[in-house]
Amino acid sequence: MNQNIVTPSILPGFLELLPQDQMIFNRMLDVIRSTYERYGFIPLDTPVIEKSEILLAKSGGETEKQIYRFNKGDNDLSLRFDLTVPLARYVAQHYYELTFPFRRYHIGKVYRGESPQKGRFREFYQCDIDIIGNENLNIINEAEVLSIIYSTFKALGFDRFTMRINNRKVLNGFFEWLNVQNKADVLRVIDKIDKIGSEAVARELGSMGINSGVAQEILRFIKIKGKPEEMIEGLKEMNVDNELFKLGVEELEQVCSHIRYFGIPQENFALDLTIARGLDYYTGTVYETILNDYPSIGSVCSGGRYDSLASNYTEKKLPGVGISIGLSRLFYQLKEAGILKADTASTPTKLLIIPMKETMSNSLDIATKARQSGIPTEVYFNEGKMGKKFGYADKLGIPFAMVIGEDEVNTGMFRLKNMKTGEQETVNIDELISKIKGYSIENTSL
Amino acid sequence: MNQNIVTPSILPGFLELLPQDQMIFNRMLDVIRSTYERYGFIPLDTPVIEKSEILLAKSGGETEKQIYRFNKGDNDLSLRFDLTVPLARYVAQHYYELTFPFRRYHIGKVYRGESPQKGRFREFYQCDIDIIGNENLNIINEAEVLSIIYSTFKALGFDRFTMRINNRKVLNGFFEWLNVQNKADVLRVIDKIDKIGSEAVARELGSMGINSGVAQEILRFIKIKGKPEEMIEGLKEMNVDNELFKLGVEELEQVCSHIRYFGIPQENFALDLTIARGLDYYTGTVYETILNDYPSIGSVCSGGRYDSLASNYTEKKLPGVGISIGLSRLFYQLKEAGILKADTASTPTKLLIIPMKETMSNSLDIATKARQSGIPTEVYFNEGKMGKKFGYADKLGIPFAMVIGEDEVNTGMFRLKNMKTGEQETVNIDELISKIKGYSIENTSL
Repeated sequence: MNQNIVTPSILPGFLELLPQDQMIFNRMLDVIRSTYERYGFIPLDTPVIEKSEILLAKSGGETEKQIYRFNKGDNDLSLRFDLTVPLARYVAQHYYELTFPFRRYHIGKVYRGESPQKGRFREFYQCDIDIIGNENLNIINEAEVLSIIYSTFKALGFDRFTMRINNRKVLNGFFEWLNVQNKADVLRVIDKIDKIGSEAVARELGSMGINSGVAQEILRFIKIKGKPEEMIEGLKEMNVDNELFKLGVEELEQVCSHIRYFGIPQENFALDLTIARGLDYYTGTVYETILNDYPSIGSVCSGGRYDSLASNYTEKKLPGVGISIGLSRLFYQLKEAGILKADTASTPTKLLIIPMKETMSNSLDIATKARQSGIPTEVYFNEGKMGKKFGYADKLGIPFAMVIGEDEVNTGMFRLKNMKTGEQETVNIDELISKIKGYSIENTSL
Repeated sequence: MNQNIVTPSILPGFLELLPQDQMIFNRMLDVIRSTYERYGFIPLDTPVIEKSEILLAKSGGETEKQIYRFNKGDNDLSLRFDLTVPLARYVAQHYYELTFPFRRYHIGKVYRGESPQKGRFREFYQCDIDIIGNENLNIINEAEVLSIIYSTFKALGFDRFTMRINNRKVLNGFFEWLNVQNKADVLRVIDKIDKIGSEAVARELGSMGINSGVAQEILRFIKIKGKPEEMIEGLKEMNVDNELFKLGVEELEQVCSHIRYFGIPQENFALDLTIARGLDYYTGTVYETILNDYPSIGSVCSGGRYDSLASNYTEKKLPGVGISIGLSRLFYQLKEAGILKADTASTPTKLLIIPMKETMSNSLDIATKARQSGIPTEVYFNEGKMGKKFGYADKLGIPFAMVIGEDEVNTGMFRLKNMKTGEQETVNIDELISKIKGYSIENTSL
């Protein structure tokens, strides 16, 4: 035994997939990417390593603890922990070279040294879009973002999901009116209402020093439920005497009215007055997206409107709106829930050609033709028994295989084997190509 | 002035692109990816951060100096410096879950803390393929790799490039026969022959302690030029009495004979007996690829055959063959050389729809139809003068734009403006879609 062998393993909290899962993961990435591009978002790619002074310009407790930070030479380096801070730096840095509104998407890995736990990763993919305005940004963009979320999850194969929105101005204005200071604590208590009921919530609010009149207003507020237009009516009837609140309600109303234009079905959309989103910089619409049948996964796509993207790097006012899909986590959760289609291949190959020694040249010609038609094709070069060769196609989930012998070369007719059904069909080269292409189109859903 | 503003910038030696260049770069990535997939390579994605003991299992001077290595908690971490070591670790770790020959591609970023210099980056993309056998691997794979390089560079839009190969057994056997110890030094001197001539080479070899008889043999060897079959004849005529050398010549002959099957034009292929490739582990065919018109760029795609991929992590014998394209460097060099097509867009958007207030709903309907047909479409939401709206399309290089007024909605006929020629054409929705799709197909070359 070689004593220098290092046991092969990866670090805890990192995700690595076997080919079959990787194929599914990449298909999800492709769907997201192509949906984002169909809405005209520009691809961006920034360095994974940035100056620590850039990434930590806005110091924050959790972020600073979790960040991967180190020195190399004289440089103080950090790995990016999201794609928003690099975007802010990019837009500030290249401000005069960009055209606004600047619509960009970014799909890439980010790093957070969290304590490892199920479904949480230290390296994970984020799939972000943001629309950045110069000085101002029309509120209709906040409705368009819903349309993009809707199209993305439909394209990923989901029907039963709900995009929930709120408006930070409503929440902030409401608390301002009530003179509530410890907003974060109040929100945490409010969040428990479905579990513990209104009375317990009122009690907890009381124990935080909130008087009962204020607690009653808070309970009235979070009990506003129903269709968006009913909820907006309910908000107005609260008679909150605060300008920020009124502006927030007006914005909610505008976004709800705009989304009708985008053809989003009612069942995929709801208002939820308790959504706050942790980050401080959201100032308008905020988004969460729930898979109706898997609410425990939590929000699978979140984001919001902000007034100032890059105030740490520039004096320019750059309002924007954006969302992020944490794909590594989503993928892991879908897999755990058994939702991902099991019956998928471990390779992009759609056709395995098995040559005989004397037909190698012809076999390669046919492979070239198939590839030029867009069919991923492999030629099996290893020697061995026929069973092993077909077994290779079987193990990888290659849907079609065929042997090319001298007969095939002489007649131009091939016996194409469907590896799933075992059926064999005799076809010429054109039929072969159109058969495999047809099959591939039918079978590329998620 | 806000005193907390941090000047936005990135670290030296890192590459970041503006949208127009990013679009070109991504197109190159896509071409490489789809070519690799057409040859049936399986996508793989491994963590960027690995255990240092894994990445440094095979200690090497330069690598160890350049590696980004740091601690987080109890972990000794490093950023990967290539995609081959992670592949070796992956195959050893998942050996029993993989099907061999294992054909994988990996496109990802790698990290080397080199001293910054023009065209060298500390973070850069590698685009790798490898074919890994279990115990053995048919030599025809070494010819297939040439076919993949050929298809990739053709698909990238190149015609004038030369794939050069050598065989390490030839070189090693030759030096063994001559009893030359300091092979690396000899190769460095040999490399200068085009610049300094044979006599100077002979002198330098002499000053290294190589006797003149041996020096003459070396000169005879490197002067073997011509067509592959002529060179193989020349090698045989050297009458080198060494088994390794003879095996190498036989392998070269086999690879040259096999590549005929793959339809590779003669002008894109050559033998070059001076190619060694730095890495120690190559044991058979080695590859370099030169752009004929830009030889100073150096090899744009290199690799080779190795007998043992993962001996640091497993006792299994895993021979393989692979190549790598360093895309960040290639992109940078092509741009510097002025080869990249300048006339490209800064966005994937192909159609800009400019709505009027009262046609918003219809405009969004048309946008949805266009998107469903696969056309990246943007609706311009900002208010302002018409000139500014068309100006937005102009600046981003969006090829088509149209205003949707009430007339358009009522008649179902749209005045589509070609932003390049200024031409306007009145079309219905189906004509509109097929016109833009036709244009897009024509204009997506690199």
